[in-house]
Amino acid sequence: MLTTDVANLAEQVMVRCRELASFSEDAGSLRRTFLSAPMHHVHRTIADWLKPLGATIRIDAVGNLRALFPSDATDGPRLLIGSHLDTVPNAGCYDGILGVVLAVALLEALRGTDLPFSIEVIGFSEEEGVRFGTPFIGSRALVGRFDPELLEKNDSSGVSVRRAIEGFGLDPGEIPQAEITDHAFAYLEFHIEQGPVLERLGRPLGVVEAIVGQSRMEVTFIGRSNHAGTTPMDVRKDALAGAAEWITNVEHVARATPGLVATVGFVSASPGAINIIAGEARATLDLRHQDDDVRNRSVRDLLDQAEQIASRRSLSVRWVTHVNQAAVPMDSSLKSEVEAAIRDAGCEPHRMVSGAGHDAMILAGKIPAAMIFLRTPGGISHDPAENVQTGDVAKALECGIHLLQRLASSEKIHARTQRE
Amino acid sequence: MLTTDVANLAEQVMVRCRELASFSEDAGSLRRTFLSAPMHHVHRTIADWLKPLGATIRIDAVGNLRALFPSDATDGPRLLIGSHLDTVPNAGCYDGILGVVLAVALLEALRGTDLPFSIEVIGFSEEEGVRFGTPFIGSRALVGRFDPELLEKNDSSGVSVRRAIEGFGLDPGEIPQAEITDHAFAYLEFHIEQGPVLERLGRPLGVVEAIVGQSRMEVTFIGRSNHAGTTPMDVRKDALAGAAEWITNVEHVARATPGLVATVGFVSASPGAINIIAGEARATLDLRHQDDDVRNRSVRDLLDQAEQIASRRSLSVRWVTHVNQAAVPMDSSLKSEVEAAIRDAGCEPHRMVSGAGHDAMILAGKIPAAMIFLRTPGGISHDPAENVQTGDVAKALECGIHLLQRLASSEKIHARTQRE
Repeated sequence: MLTTDVANLAEQVMVRCRELASFSEDAGSLRRTFLSAPMHHVHRTIADWLKPLGATIRIDAVGNLRALFPSDATDGPRLLIGSHLDTVPNAGCYDGILGVVLAVALLEALRGTDLPFSIEVIGFSEEEGVRFGTPFIGSRALVGRFDPELLEKNDSSGVSVRRAIEGFGLDPGEIPQAEITDHAFAYLEFHIEQGPVLERLGRPLGVVEAIVGQSRMEVTFIGRSNHAGTTPMDVRKDALAGAAEWITNVEHVARATPGLVATVGFVSASPGAINIIAGEARATLDLRHQDDDVRNRSVRDLLDQAEQIASRRSLSVRWVTHVNQAAVPMDSSLKSEVEAAIRDAGCEPHRMVSGAGHDAMILAGKIPAAMIFLRTPGGISHDPAENVQTGDVAKALECGIHLLQRLASSEKIHARTQRE
Repeated sequence: MLTTDVANLAEQVMVRCRELASFSEDAGSLRRTFLSAPMHHVHRTIADWLKPLGATIRIDAVGNLRALFPSDATDGPRLLIGSHLDTVPNAGCYDGILGVVLAVALLEALRGTDLPFSIEVIGFSEEEGVRFGTPFIGSRALVGRFDPELLEKNDSSGVSVRRAIEGFGLDPGEIPQAEITDHAFAYLEFHIEQGPVLERLGRPLGVVEAIVGQSRMEVTFIGRSNHAGTTPMDVRKDALAGAAEWITNVEHVARATPGLVATVGFVSASPGAINIIAGEARATLDLRHQDDDVRNRSVRDLLDQAEQIASRRSLSVRWVTHVNQAAVPMDSSLKSEVEAAIRDAGCEPHRMVSGAGHDAMILAGKIPAAMIFLRTPGGISHDPAENVQTGDVAKALECGIHLLQRLASSEKIHARTQRE
């Protein structure tokens, strides 16, 4: 394929991403949550792009867009390429959507090429977890891990998942049919990095080694509320002073541990008055690492430190764990193929960890998965200023073309397909 | 006076404080703010105790209870004894009220004693600042420092100070007549310590050297909000990490500076989500010391440190000063008389600083003022558990009797009275 054609396709990807961003629940900003009305427009628009390419399109029972491009061998292996179509409130145009629009462009680029596998382009209905507080609803259904109890969960307007599915014109009873049962040999996801790493290295594309494991918890220090004027320093049981010491420890531990990120994003003091010593202070912890041992050890260290701080200050401390999610490595032979394809596209690949969760994390439990990150200007995402460079999209397309050609000729993939 | 009589009067003081605590705006807990309906009951009850002692009673135009006990010399000097009758929400029985009830008991104890000065017992209408956010309304009117603009200030129900005064049956036009213009030679205030110092020393009574100066401010660190998973530690501009470091500095400076108390009682992070690095963090500072130079230097040091922290972390920082109030020393010869009277009562006096503001602070601007602190069990105040020991009240009464006798015979007071 000519470089000019790739450049034109990349321009078209940018235009299409911005076009899809016009389908929003909010006037003046982009917000498109799970099974919201504007998702119908997104589905119709993408279907209009896909149909001329020979795709068979359906919306599965959780609202995933599923576009199948058959190969000559009808029962042959299947390659999945996708990302998500929902957004956070006040979103940018590229998070998730880019991966779907790029898959469409890839099929246009490869039109007429004979591939030994069918391709299914998937636009997941739900990844961000905004509407029901539960992320990855779309990809969970795809791997048969949709929890039926979720059907009764309500959004902030009191609408259940079940009603939302029915309201979208779908049948919750058909959710089991959303599961991939074919010989899917790989899942590929293109996604913006949402961080500053590739930009700092001056590289357009990265290959994801693993999606980090996450611990999320809330730590509460309890002391004694007292008068800020009449209580000498040496008899205070200041819960907020204890929490502040611990928050600085969180940062020290993260800075001293390669690859670790740890964040206290929320803190509160009670009663919270300017002239009253805090009797209680709550702080959240979000801690991520690609190595679960390192992550678990870091959490233990920080909780030990919280106990030491509390003991030295005559405070007590308690904590609640909200999330304890293991790291998910990407498939190692797919990673090598992605790396080679990035080189084929004339770029130097960077192996990196994804600090955020993605649908690939869910798919990896069932299907070999790989992710390609695109450089994100300023590392900005979940914001109207979120962007991606057209030249990087062109490089991602070139990489994708090479990657599919590599997969087509790969003995390993045929061997793996036989094994399954 | 016999020790048994003092003990009986002290018992009566305790009973009366608890009786007054039954006059509340809230059911089940004590809350009695400026010019609230239950204040009428308090006035009537105290008046019933005072009238048999020969007092002339009035309620001045800001709602202060004023009970005058004339001396033989009608134009002679006047001694003021008082404290406040308003409370915080969910209050105890003694903060403020004890000082008024103790003054009544003192007059009972001294009934028949011929004193060379008249005595005015004052129950201030407003000290806590709860209803209108402005403290010391009662004592400010007494010294002619009532700001007429305050009349238009509204409470949380939209009732102005003017309407509140009229609603209580008083005339705002008569506020100037609330000012003390007589030859008041001294103001005495008995008050619970509201801190743990006397209890730790095992002493019933303290003499206040000065009321601390206060600085109150709000410090805001500004960084950049970002994704907690995808933003490496070394490129973060975490406003809360900066604020936490500064909060620990506040504590270090206070611990390293004798007599200084410094408190961060409120903190918030924005946007305040578990998985988002805080782009902004606000923290309050309440800092108090008896020496204004030490206080001002400490504030400057802490703001310098805030700037250094911000600069090192690529944050910015700004602050707003809400209060910058100078320390108020108590009258030195009155302090000596109080100290001697405490010894007369068989106690070892402790000279101490008041970490909280009191009406004496306002009176001291016009009239020599002194305060006597009573030991406060557990240092607890502004709480239903607030308490005082009956034996300590008896010691305070004995101290008061000796103090008034000392003042009666003091050449200095006569001399000072001449001077004014």
